[in-house]
Amino acid sequence: MEKSKGVAYCDGNYVPVDKATIPILDPAFTKSDVVFDAVSVWNNQFFRLEDHLARFRASCKYVRMNLPLSENEIKVILAQCVAQAELTQAVVFMLCTRGRYGGGVAFGDPRTCRNQFMAYSVPYYWAIPKEHAETGGHLWIAETRRAPNVAINQRVKNFNRMDLTMAQFEALDAGADTPLLLSTEGHLTEGPGYNVWIVQKHKVYTPSDNLLEGITRLTVFDLCGELNLIAKAMDLSPEDLIEADEVFISSSAGGILPVTKVNNALIGDGMPGPISSQLGKLYWEKRAQGWHATNVADILVKPTLHPANHGHIKAREKIRN
Amino acid sequence: MEKSKGVAYCDGNYVPVDKATIPILDPAFTKSDVVFDAVSVWNNQFFRLEDHLARFRASCKYVRMNLPLSENEIKVILAQCVAQAELTQAVVFMLCTRGRYGGGVAFGDPRTCRNQFMAYSVPYYWAIPKEHAETGGHLWIAETRRAPNVAINQRVKNFNRMDLTMAQFEALDAGADTPLLLSTEGHLTEGPGYNVWIVQKHKVYTPSDNLLEGITRLTVFDLCGELNLIAKAMDLSPEDLIEADEVFISSSAGGILPVTKVNNALIGDGMPGPISSQLGKLYWEKRAQGWHATNVADILVKPTLHPANHGHIKAREKIRN
Repeated sequence: MEKSKGVAYCDGNYVPVDKATIPILDPAFTKSDVVFDAVSVWNNQFFRLEDHLARFRASCKYVRMNLPLSENEIKVILAQCVAQAELTQAVVFMLCTRGRYGGGVAFGDPRTCRNQFMAYSVPYYWAIPKEHAETGGHLWIAETRRAPNVAINQRVKNFNRMDLTMAQFEALDAGADTPLLLSTEGHLTEGPGYNVWIVQKHKVYTPSDNLLEGITRLTVFDLCGELNLIAKAMDLSPEDLIEADEVFISSSAGGILPVTKVNNALIGDGMPGPISSQLGKLYWEKRAQGWHATNVADILVKPTLHPANHGHIKAREKIRN
Repeated sequence: MEKSKGVAYCDGNYVPVDKATIPILDPAFTKSDVVFDAVSVWNNQFFRLEDHLARFRASCKYVRMNLPLSENEIKVILAQCVAQAELTQAVVFMLCTRGRYGGGVAFGDPRTCRNQFMAYSVPYYWAIPKEHAETGGHLWIAETRRAPNVAINQRVKNFNRMDLTMAQFEALDAGADTPLLLSTEGHLTEGPGYNVWIVQKHKVYTPSDNLLEGITRLTVFDLCGELNLIAKAMDLSPEDLIEADEVFISSSAGGILPVTKVNNALIGDGMPGPISSQLGKLYWEKRAQGWHATNVADILVKPTLHPANHGHIKAREKIRN
């Protein structure tokens, strides 16, 4: 078991994440017919696990998938993926895949599929490389636009990311850290794995439409409340971003990270802004205090809930016995 | 070897298609960062193989992937996937996947990936079930829209298909065969694996924008030329479709198939139209005569070009020796 790289739960077994695979004929691959969620673990504690699970269930419902496991079974699997990998800092993915078409055909009726649950842990990572984020990240407003909700509902966390990837090439080519995509209407939306925020005259704003409503985005609203800062979701333009006093991003992969450059233009004085820094500091302080935390070990204390190395059905039978 | 289900070429080996997998950490899965093409085989003959290969190369170039194999090596692999499966009628897929990020991380720079070639054959299938297509298919204009080119370039054959899948649920729920998606501007685009056509006053029209320019679509233009029919690509509305004299679809999976119903409304007299039928008949007649055909066996006659059961690099070394 290559513990440091993460552990996957796949077909009812725990395996090193590098060994985990999916069938090439699963529409999860051939049609990106899969939804997911990703929850962070810091010092052995999940953050807002219930919120991630609720959003994951909503994603499944939207694409008409039935999770073959209960909430408790899923929690145990997620905790096992962390514990078996011996990771104290991790990002943990939960996926529901469409599963193969009835009869094993390559092209068929999605209603005939038996939906599958998968999960995996990987070492914690940052939406912007950590060393850049400390001095302030560089966002790139890409030419490629984010696919609109009317085509691909971005409130549903999904792997249809060709737009994000093409935008990422634009950003990397330009020497920036990560792209920020506009909607087809020209409003700011989101980047790969993060929401964007601006601070203008001590008020905090984030885009409202055509994006995933991040759990860390929700957390920023909470933290703004604690700091008596007005925070609001609304349509924002590229100009709003460039002219902001401060810019930061929120992500399960890194928390709250300052941005000091957008398309080569400095934001404010080019240093991480005071409100961004205050929010980032408060985020980690409160997490250290156990805010919205669920201990990995606490989930694993009940041995009867432990489906390790059993198939879904076997695991459920075991729990019922 | 389950020959009847197809054979895949994966990691340099030929395996039953049901056994072929991709790593869950490959961005080909986690970001649908993969392009593909699909060519039909009828009576052991590929149809327009060169055109499919050219489009595949264009797709790879657009998403900045480098195919690790030569054109000849790819042809041999595609032929092997058919021959080893002992399929005389098949659809053969060629894929280029992004490949794992450098360092094996879960989230990284796509420029660090070693792009991979994969292929697989499956038994021939129809974009609309064959038994329905014979009497005329039923299309469903879906509420879900096709993602626009500015986000996901649909000229690039890709697996970002959540829009197609959600639309497919709409169609199947309504008792139709397959969905037809509108662009965000409200024009007809395409459905899963097919282009749509209308006949109006002996002229033939197909949508022009935000779609894959199908090889069978190109073939319809050729056949119309032979039959002295005017054929034109242009913006078409749902009303153009409903009010058409005839409707048909074109696809590598089925050729030219008549449509007699759209959203429960009959097209014309509800019978397959004469021009649709004439085009469909001519398509199969010309294929039987060897039009644009490449024999599977002819590709496999040169043993030095045969990379069976060797890795990419080994296969190339063998060819050079």
